[in-house]
Parts: sequence; structure tokens; C-alpha cells
Amino acid sequence: MKSYRKELWFNVSSRREFINITPEIQECLMESRIEEGMILVNAMHITASVFINDDEGGLHQDYEEWLERLAPHAPISRYRHNLTGEDNGDAHLKRQIMGREVVVAITGGQLDFGPWEQIFYGEFDGGRRKRVLVKIIGE
Amino acid sequence: MKSYRKELWFNVSSRREFINITPEIQECLMESRIEEGMILVNAMHITASVFINDDEGGLHQDYEEWLERLAPHAPISRYRHNLTGEDNGDAHLKRQIMGREVVVAITGGQLDFGPWEQIFYGEFDGGRRKRVLVKIIGE
Amino acid sequence: MKSYRKELWFNVSSRREFINITPEIQECLMESRIEEGMILVNAMHITASVFINDDEGGLHQDYEEWLERLAPHAPISRYRHNLTGEDNGDAHLKRQIMGREVVVAITGGQLDFGPWEQIFYGEFDGGRRKRVLVKIIGE
Repeated sequence: MKSYRKELWFNVSSRREFINITPEIQECLMESRIEEGMILVNAMHITASVFINDDEGGLHQDYEEWLERLAPHAPISRYRHNLTGEDNGDAHLKRQIMGREVVVAITGGQLDFGPWEQIFYGEFDGGRRKRVLVKIIGE
Repeated sequence: MKSYRKELWFNVSSRREFINITPEIQECLMESRIEEGMILVNAMHITASVFINDDEGGLHQDYEEWLERLAPHAPISRYRHNLTGEDNGDAHLKRQIMGREVVVAITGGQLDFGPWEQIFYGEFDGGRRKRVLVKIIGE
Repeated sequence: MKSYRKELWFNVSSRREFINITPEIQECLMESRIEEGMILVNAMHITASVFINDDEGGLHQDYEEWLERLAPHAPISRYRHNLTGEDNGDAHLKRQIMGREVVVAITGGQLDFGPWEQIFYGEFDGGRRKRVLVKIIGE
């Protein structure tokens, strides 16, 4: 069994953003020379997500509004977590909806994807450097 | 390390439906002859889910109503994504709640499940042929 | 490829609770002597979750209130599932938000975690013995 590990770094200037990281993940896969196996891509921070969906700007705005309706940022007094001095209580909730990680099959040295699948980093509490972990195991 | 791959095809005539795919997954596992490892089962489409829960019709109706309350289908003008000509904006949201994939342990050649765990395909935008990917790695 | 399996048992006396199980998972990892690979940690019951987030009491109260707002326990007649004689319809919904499982990279014999990542068992229908499955594959 071979294994591969890499960290991807992000520094999103706005509070929230969705970034298509599929090209970076494909580079990792090529570097790994793993042909058959599984790849794990996860946020290393608990106010961010990694998820798979469509690279369509309208949809991303829909996600933004929907998440804000399900777990509003303000008033920040709404969340007990913010009594710690943070203002990111909402981000911990939004991240549970969108998920921490994806696991993708590796077949013939490629991400084994359907026609529209793309991997996104979802930032819900930007303004600082944060990491995504890429781990591949296989042969 | 051995690996196995199969696509399962679905063509749901209604817009939304939950289908128990545990028997098909067990067949894949037998075909693979893998005894110890992990199995990944994921929707290859971004308006569908694979998830694990109970095979109980009342619960499935509860899911249907709950998801429709959290992310209503109509009016379709509600979603910017539908400006692309689609009417499935809600399906992209529902799928995030229910999830894209499950990873299940393989032990002694079996799905290593608790007493009530069953694997479901969740369709949120039916009326076309769609796929689920089954990937197994192990020995 | 090596593999390791263990069940962790819980008996939560209240209906709902979040328990940090990171120390138990680290013990499993040491016992396995696996240095590179992936670990799957999943609830074996369909009214419980395993998820990764922050070990902060205020946040856990925020989760509790948020989940109760998204999928209220009462009135139990609200859920068709409860016509079976159960009163845990809400627990099946809450678990979908928080997730069934996590997959974590194993690097150098350690859980490959960001600074605040901790693994939790989320109980949504306590008062009985329930299990979490730990499966590790790697080398």
C-alpha cells in the first residue's frame, strides 16, 4: 500500500466563500502516482467544509442564503459559543450542514467522478490562514 | 491491496424517492471477494444522496416533508440556480442535508453494520438515468 | 495491508448528549500499530452521530438548541415514524444533520488533525446501550 499526504493552505479575505479546489486535488493525485484507492479531502478547521457539488455561481449564492437562514451569523449574542469571545458560532453550525470531508474513489489514476462533481472548500469564518488535508491510500 | 469498482444505475420516475440498495451493495461485496477493508458508496450526481438509516416507510415520509420544509421545491424562482433553466435548485440543497456518500467497514467479508443500518439511494431530481459508484479496497 | 476493528459501547442516561471520544479513538490507533492509513469511526445506530468539531460546552448547547429547532422532539405525533410506537422520529432527522461517520487520515501513527479537531459521539435517543465502530486500514 502506498500513501500520500499534502496540506493545502487558504486565506479567504471575506467571511464566507466557496472555492473550487478540484485542480489542486488532481495535482496531488498525479504527484502520488496512486492508481487505485481512495482519497480523503477534509477541512482541518472546524468552521470550514469540504464538499462536492456543482461549480455554478447561482447555486453558490443559494447555498449562502440558505445557510444564513438556517444558522444566521447575527446577532452574535444568539450563540453561547460567542461568549468565549468568538463571533463564529454560526460557522460551526453551517459547517455541519455542508460537511467536513469527502472520500472519493481513485480509479485508473483519476478522481472517479460523475459528470458534474467538483470539490469545494467552504469557508465560513475567513480572515485567517486555514488548511485542507489531502490523504491518499492505494496502489 | 485489492480493489473493486461497480456502477449501479437508477431511473426514478418520480421527482423524489428513497431506494434501499443494501442488497445490491452486498452483491458487489461478494463479487469483490474482499474480506477486510472499506467500501465507499457515493452518488455520482449532485442532486442525489447515498445515506444510511432505517428502512421504515413512515420515517421516509418524515424525511420527505422535513427536507421540503428546509428547502422547498417551489416556487422555483426562489433559487438563483434555476435561472440556468433548471428547476432543481432545491435538490442541490436537500442532497447536502442527506449527504453524498457513506463509507462502511468490511469485516469477515460482510458489511459491518449495526442492527438497523441500511443503505439508501436518495433521489431528489428524478426522471433521468443516474448512477451510484461502489468502490471497495482491502484484502 | 493491516486492519483493526473495535466496538465502543455507550449508555447515555439522558435523551441527548455529546461525548468526546478522541482519547478512546487514540487508544484504538495505538493498539492497531497502524502508522499510515485511514480510520473510520461510525455510529452503529441510526439515531446517533459521530462528528468532528470543537470541545466547547457553549457550542454544544448551541448545537442542542439548533437541532431541536430544525427537528423538534415534541409533539411526537409530528412524525409518522412514531406511529410505530417509537418516540425517536426527531433523532433520525437530527442524526442526518450531524452525520453518521468520520474518516480521518492516519499519519506517523497519529490522528492527522487540525488544531481544534475532536471526535464526538452524538446521542439523540439515549437510555439504552449503543455502539460506535472503529475500523482502521493501512500499514
